[in-house]
Amino acid sequence: MALTRIALAQVDTCVGDVDANARLVLEWSRRAAQAGAALVVFPEMTLAGYPVEDLALRASFRRAAEAAVQRTAADLVEAGLGDLTVVVGTIGERLTSTEPDAQVRPTNQAVVLHRGQVLARYDKHHLPNYGVFDERRIFVPGEDTCVVDVAGRRVGVVICEDIWQDGGPVSQMDEHDIDLLVVPNGSPYEEGKGHVRTELAARRAREVDAPVVYVNLVGGQDDLVFDGGSFVVGADGELLASAPQFVEHLLLWDLADADEPAAHGPVAAPLSEDEEVYRALVTGLAGYVRKNGFRSVTLGLSGGIDSALVAAIAADAIGGQNVVGVSMPSVYSSDHSKDDAADLAKRIGADYRVQAIRPFVDVFESEMGLQGVAAENLQARMRGVILMALSNAEGHLVLATGNKSELAVGYSTIYGDAVGGYAPLKDVDKSRVWALARWRNDAARDGVFSPDELPPIPESSITKPPSAELRPGQVDQDSLPPYDLLDEVLDAYVEHAEGRPELLARGYDPAVVDKVLSLVDRAEWKRRQYPLGPKVTALAFGRDRRLPVTTRWREA
Amino acid sequence: MALTRIALAQVDTCVGDVDANARLVLEWSRRAAQAGAALVVFPEMTLAGYPVEDLALRASFRRAAEAAVQRTAADLVEAGLGDLTVVVGTIGERLTSTEPDAQVRPTNQAVVLHRGQVLARYDKHHLPNYGVFDERRIFVPGEDTCVVDVAGRRVGVVICEDIWQDGGPVSQMDEHDIDLLVVPNGSPYEEGKGHVRTELAARRAREVDAPVVYVNLVGGQDDLVFDGGSFVVGADGELLASAPQFVEHLLLWDLADADEPAAHGPVAAPLSEDEEVYRALVTGLAGYVRKNGFRSVTLGLSGGIDSALVAAIAADAIGGQNVVGVSMPSVYSSDHSKDDAADLAKRIGADYRVQAIRPFVDVFESEMGLQGVAAENLQARMRGVILMALSNAEGHLVLATGNKSELAVGYSTIYGDAVGGYAPLKDVDKSRVWALARWRNDAARDGVFSPDELPPIPESSITKPPSAELRPGQVDQDSLPPYDLLDEVLDAYVEHAEGRPELLARGYDPAVVDKVLSLVDRAEWKRRQYPLGPKVTALAFGRDRRLPVTTRWREA
Repeated sequence: MALTRIALAQVDTCVGDVDANARLVLEWSRRAAQAGAALVVFPEMTLAGYPVEDLALRASFRRAAEAAVQRTAADLVEAGLGDLTVVVGTIGERLTSTEPDAQVRPTNQAVVLHRGQVLARYDKHHLPNYGVFDERRIFVPGEDTCVVDVAGRRVGVVICEDIWQDGGPVSQMDEHDIDLLVVPNGSPYEEGKGHVRTELAARRAREVDAPVVYVNLVGGQDDLVFDGGSFVVGADGELLASAPQFVEHLLLWDLADADEPAAHGPVAAPLSEDEEVYRALVTGLAGYVRKNGFRSVTLGLSGGIDSALVAAIAADAIGGQNVVGVSMPSVYSSDHSKDDAADLAKRIGADYRVQAIRPFVDVFESEMGLQGVAAENLQARMRGVILMALSNAEGHLVLATGNKSELAVGYSTIYGDAVGGYAPLKDVDKSRVWALARWRNDAARDGVFSPDELPPIPESSITKPPSAELRPGQVDQDSLPPYDLLDEVLDAYVEHAEGRPELLARGYDPAVVDKVLSLVDRAEWKRRQYPLGPKVTALAFGRDRRLPVTTRWREA
Repeated sequence: MALTRIALAQVDTCVGDVDANARLVLEWSRRAAQAGAALVVFPEMTLAGYPVEDLALRASFRRAAEAAVQRTAADLVEAGLGDLTVVVGTIGERLTSTEPDAQVRPTNQAVVLHRGQVLARYDKHHLPNYGVFDERRIFVPGEDTCVVDVAGRRVGVVICEDIWQDGGPVSQMDEHDIDLLVVPNGSPYEEGKGHVRTELAARRAREVDAPVVYVNLVGGQDDLVFDGGSFVVGADGELLASAPQFVEHLLLWDLADADEPAAHGPVAAPLSEDEEVYRALVTGLAGYVRKNGFRSVTLGLSGGIDSALVAAIAADAIGGQNVVGVSMPSVYSSDHSKDDAADLAKRIGADYRVQAIRPFVDVFESEMGLQGVAAENLQARMRGVILMALSNAEGHLVLATGNKSELAVGYSTIYGDAVGGYAPLKDVDKSRVWALARWRNDAARDGVFSPDELPPIPESSITKPPSAELRPGQVDQDSLPPYDLLDEVLDAYVEHAEGRPELLARGYDPAVVDKVLSLVDRAEWKRRQYPLGPKVTALAFGRDRRLPVTTRWREA
């Protein structure tokens, strides 16, 4: 039985860090060759990083990516890896027409490297432009198919969205009678998306009557989390091998002859729903901190569940010793809140500090005499100023601790608790916050993270009624529906764009629906108000110039 | 000679305020009919407002827009305007295929109303998805052409981008032998764009051998400014009539028989470059304040040129009596700064207050002992907290006063002077700030705004060296290249995406280039860092959900 070994290099690239990404390609190609692979496949846009957003529109960046392609091809030979066939993602260029005023425009490209040469180039056809994707804004689509020979086997190459759309380059593979279809991907994590990917790949495998190798990016990049979970399905759609999620991994799988039975490789055990989301949050934060050049984070510890969960996530992402927790009690803070904050910090091994806000609030009250919402917001803003001062003085990234339910209904102070460079719970509703806290404490008891750790989150932070503690005796449910009900309505209204009639038809109390919808609309409006400004020249900062936050690309 | 009178209704719509937009259509249709028009044309997406962004993805919003179409058709008849033909923009719907899983998707639509009926519907073909435009993200393209009969003349309808692309619906007009092409637009203001529009329309007019009626939106919407400037070009490309910029206007023009000479209408005098930009800034701010339900603004007055220009713009936009200027001197503020601030407030008739920041800074220094950049930033942040407290207590919109040059190089404090809901100078570089200040003072002397006003901006604010006054004796040029040089390099690097090699080839000093590029890259990185967070569910707040800031659409 003749087998061709294929390696799926599930790596964590960084947008703009072309040199480091090229070093990753060299290093993981070496590992693949040592493991006997004839072909190694990297994720989408390996050298440029993904998503590059408007960096793609800079000619100097495209030149740097192309130089990295040429250098990598040469470096592979020099390292004795010339016989290995390497599929690497990069940013390409294409003339938009044959007219004299034709422009050079970027493409989302995969190159096939072999013996120091670029054997083939493939430009992605289907450019997603929905949800988080802006590819039609940035790239021009390719028009050609790509089939290369690897150790006597015919291997087709397409990229990510190409398999999500019917027709296109996959359907054109028919006439090429391929033995294998390889697909580099930059597919962001979403709850429950894993099944969708494997089912889709299975359908395409049956269409082309060949196994499909699906290689996904892993790691946090800006507000996206790539979960890896690369896999292989057979020509009949059966799952033959898969890599674990949320870690870099080299998955090996052997392509058999067409008349031989398909070979099976290792299959990773699936994670529970809560573990998957928790690990996504840890991966996202770890990537954001590292790729932006931070080593430590700071956050306010209120004794409540949100800041406790964020602190636990941060400790898992970068180590408790790199977390600076600051208790900033006001006159309304209860003793148990301060105790819970100190207890949490001790459990996760964080640097713990206390800075009461009373002196700051007092001077504002004596100078300006604030009342009502202005006085409540002031407390939150003093905390924001304290955390930013610590960040300026000591270099920590500030984490905002608000959850999605709060943010959705505007239960948050702009320039106050909303202060921060990264908000780990931005997309986690309150019901899920509690579930994740319980899951994390259970995982400690079960020794999932380390054999002898304490549950990181104090039990009373989980069980007590949530409160912003901005007024005496205040609790969230004074002004909000119960969180389980709130989160259901938010999910329907925000995530699924259902309107009022649809919500009423599902039997929700009209008073609750109207309350939630008016809170969300108002909060959305306030959130989007800050900060904007007009656009009067051809291009301007802001919404017509989209750059990744986390990028190592520097002109100078 | 048989003439058909055409009315171009250059109106100011508001995104999401379907009812108010429908009232505008009725009111301006009445004016058009009274002026003897047979046809009135409104701007792109009249009823929905433009740009609607992801509001288009809400079925409940699309239903509201369609109800407004039906109601407007009936209301026109009831008002005795049934004989008038009315071209109105709205949001349509289209099934994406004939498959069972086909989805209803939104379109960018124009409807033709006549005698209580929807005579025709046209869905825009070319969906711009570059710069500020996200239309491919939101809409599906149309495929049909639209030609209607108005008073015995054949009138073709296309929308905005349809005339910017070769081919498509304009080229299909050939076979219809049209007498007139009408084009509703939502074309944002950019410096110098007016000429591009008229030249383009002239080319299309010659292509279809018929006059082109170009109707543009006017007013501020979020960070866009629509300048109006609607016009008519003849079949030979000659400019026959045009409306003034930055005001609502009904332009009337008579379509002659094909064998008669073309009729001329009024032609608006062009504005000077500085006046055009100044009026764009006033229009943008006025629209933002009004459409977001504010009546007043507050800003810090430092005595410097930026805050002085912003205050003058605000006074022109909403009246000086609705401007609250706050002087917030520190120990480093010079006497002349305080005098200039007070002088400015008096000249524009603003409410003027003084709140020294020393008491706040002192308590932070005694509690936290801040030094260096942390101490400098603290001063700016105390000012931000003061303005937000005033906003919370009294309801003013906070204006940020930073200019584009400062923002580009990071000469700004996040949560400090960057605080604000609207930044009028976000897209105006420092060189232009001085030019606009001088232009505005000259305009006062020339009586452009009112016969007897004083120049609003104190002369010493224009002439003194710019300083942030965060350290003793500090001036901007301690740490930045001269502004005229800085602005040139910024323009090449930021606006035209030139790389380091291109900049050096143009002869700039490598030390200056490297300094500016590294400042911009770092500032861009810092700006984009705040605030983000991960995305773990299918849809999330943030970049995969784009809603207009300024919208009157409310479910509840």
